[in-house]
Amino acid sequence: MQDKSHYTRYNYKKLYELAVEMFIRYGFSREDSEKVADVILTSDRFGVESHGVNRLTLYPFGIDIGRIKVDAKPEVVEDRLSMAVIDAHDGMGQLAGIQGMQLAIDKAKKYGVGMVSVRNSNHFGIAGYYSMMAAKQGLMGVSMTNAEALVVPTYAREPMFGTNPIAVTIPADPHPFHMDFATSVMTCGKMEVYAKIGHELQPGMLVDETGTTCLDPNVFLRIRDNKSNPAYTEKTRGGIMPMGGEGMLFGGHKGYGLALLVDIMCAVMSHGAVSKGVRVTKDKEKCCHFFAAIDYSLFGDREETNRRLSEYLQSMRDAEPAEGQSRVYVHGDKEADAEKDVLAHGVGINPATYAEIEKYCVKKGINIKDYLIPEEA
Amino acid sequence: MQDKSHYTRYNYKKLYELAVEMFIRYGFSREDSEKVADVILTSDRFGVESHGVNRLTLYPFGIDIGRIKVDAKPEVVEDRLSMAVIDAHDGMGQLAGIQGMQLAIDKAKKYGVGMVSVRNSNHFGIAGYYSMMAAKQGLMGVSMTNAEALVVPTYAREPMFGTNPIAVTIPADPHPFHMDFATSVMTCGKMEVYAKIGHELQPGMLVDETGTTCLDPNVFLRIRDNKSNPAYTEKTRGGIMPMGGEGMLFGGHKGYGLALLVDIMCAVMSHGAVSKGVRVTKDKEKCCHFFAAIDYSLFGDREETNRRLSEYLQSMRDAEPAEGQSRVYVHGDKEADAEKDVLAHGVGINPATYAEIEKYCVKKGINIKDYLIPEEA
Repeated sequence: MQDKSHYTRYNYKKLYELAVEMFIRYGFSREDSEKVADVILTSDRFGVESHGVNRLTLYPFGIDIGRIKVDAKPEVVEDRLSMAVIDAHDGMGQLAGIQGMQLAIDKAKKYGVGMVSVRNSNHFGIAGYYSMMAAKQGLMGVSMTNAEALVVPTYAREPMFGTNPIAVTIPADPHPFHMDFATSVMTCGKMEVYAKIGHELQPGMLVDETGTTCLDPNVFLRIRDNKSNPAYTEKTRGGIMPMGGEGMLFGGHKGYGLALLVDIMCAVMSHGAVSKGVRVTKDKEKCCHFFAAIDYSLFGDREETNRRLSEYLQSMRDAEPAEGQSRVYVHGDKEADAEKDVLAHGVGINPATYAEIEKYCVKKGINIKDYLIPEEA
Repeated sequence: MQDKSHYTRYNYKKLYELAVEMFIRYGFSREDSEKVADVILTSDRFGVESHGVNRLTLYPFGIDIGRIKVDAKPEVVEDRLSMAVIDAHDGMGQLAGIQGMQLAIDKAKKYGVGMVSVRNSNHFGIAGYYSMMAAKQGLMGVSMTNAEALVVPTYAREPMFGTNPIAVTIPADPHPFHMDFATSVMTCGKMEVYAKIGHELQPGMLVDETGTTCLDPNVFLRIRDNKSNPAYTEKTRGGIMPMGGEGMLFGGHKGYGLALLVDIMCAVMSHGAVSKGVRVTKDKEKCCHFFAAIDYSLFGDREETNRRLSEYLQSMRDAEPAEGQSRVYVHGDKEADAEKDVLAHGVGINPATYAEIEKYCVKKGINIKDYLIPEEA
């Protein structure tokens, strides 16, 4: 959909070093800076541009305005058998996320399953990073997060929950089964892109203040801007529809149910803020996450399960494509392809993102040219 | 959508007694017959006509053709910490289902979470029965099942998995959060109804042998009939699309991912048959189920969690409805409304279903008039 001819591709390893340096200069230890940089840039590695280097400066911005507390230490506030709750105390979402998933993994190794719900956190990047963490340790991983309320329940007109993504990863050959999706019909980032390129929406993606379909993506930008404008005191109306779209015909009510489930696991279980309470003021995020790890080898022989799963996934790839399609994908295939491409040819950065990063580099005395090395075409 | 003017409503309790009597005459103990009848008729209580009394005779039929083994005893074949696998040995799906979920519940009470995967089973009724079982014991419940492959992956033209439903129930006031949905855009039952009443489909619900959209629901009946015709040896093409519809625009690839997840948890984990191997021959079902129970009180005070969840769900009901809509529903509301209605006014049965039940009653020497008592209008 996007024209990428004006993107330049930069060496991945050096870009990662830049991100680490940036977070060190913002006061994080090297270890924590490496964790945060790895989460952010794994998004680019997985081909998800919206959550990668494109948003790198969002975190320094969040620190500058006080939304993200550099010194916060995630605290385990509940811990019983296979479950725990972490209070992130307004720190970096990535640090709370990695700690949360690692705790879930440790519990899974002991009890078979581990579940950790996290409150008072910040945006944690792609949900799929954390479910993949579990897969790298031989377990099945599940990861969720709530987000600012911009999605409207089926048959309503008020935005009541966020794009609330769910990610699931399970080890397989040649690469894991890996799905990571918003429970809304579209992400906010994609809505922005549609607005930017003047692309009309399809009926059922967005509703306006009447709660009925609207084709202009700029209406979404207006809803979001009004929402974050402290001078605007009216109730917010309109927003993105749940996955499946408007009404029940294509399963919009199912997407709505999954979005509720995410809010329940992340925020209700941790006694944190549900989507409606996330980013109500600019200087406080309060979002919540959920992590689960499952040692599925307790069901039966790991090798045999892996063989069966890999064979099952391959049967999908081998299914005859529809007329006009060249291949059938399995969840995780596109990420595996993107990763090879990015490690070989670099991460594409557009001039606007480059300029934004440069601004923060200048501010922190980093010479951007030491790090952003164009790859040969 | 359906005209129900030719339905007669019959007393629920007596209908239940009829179902119990039917299964006793088919060789089940009273206890097991009561379990099976309760699962089947809970579907009617929840307002899901397709899986209730409408399908009562499907089970006697399955027993008669040898697909369901009356004497089978579900066997726990793997059991480690929070996980287990049950082999249903081709017995009634409802009996394997109840045993599976109860084992998951028992494990949840011990470890916080319990997960049970079941292989070699038969159709188990509504998935929501089992997740509700957990909620009735104060836990969160998850239930899934695979089914005969009639659903086509995104961008493919071959049916590779079933309507693979997922149900989740969590205790709340005034009634539980309860969602139970097919991961396909439509159920087979609804497709049949569309064909019966000559209702054209919407684009993106069904694809024909080319893998592209098709509006005639009779094409679905043809696909299914060909599939179960032993004389028909060609590869089956066409089928229902995943929830979200055709392509990726409304999230069809997300429904596809969820359908895979169901098959993985049910069949890959239990080392049973994935959807493609379910009901390949008429006399063997081989479907697989998955059950999880979660004692979420380990996350934090149960009363406080319940208060927060109930308030959260109520905030959805209180959201301003879209233009032209009278109310916003939460998952579980329709089931609670239907249950009150059915217990007060009886279960609606159409003449075709009545005749079908009568046939089996005659066969087993049951006087149908002793049990099917019309409620006063």
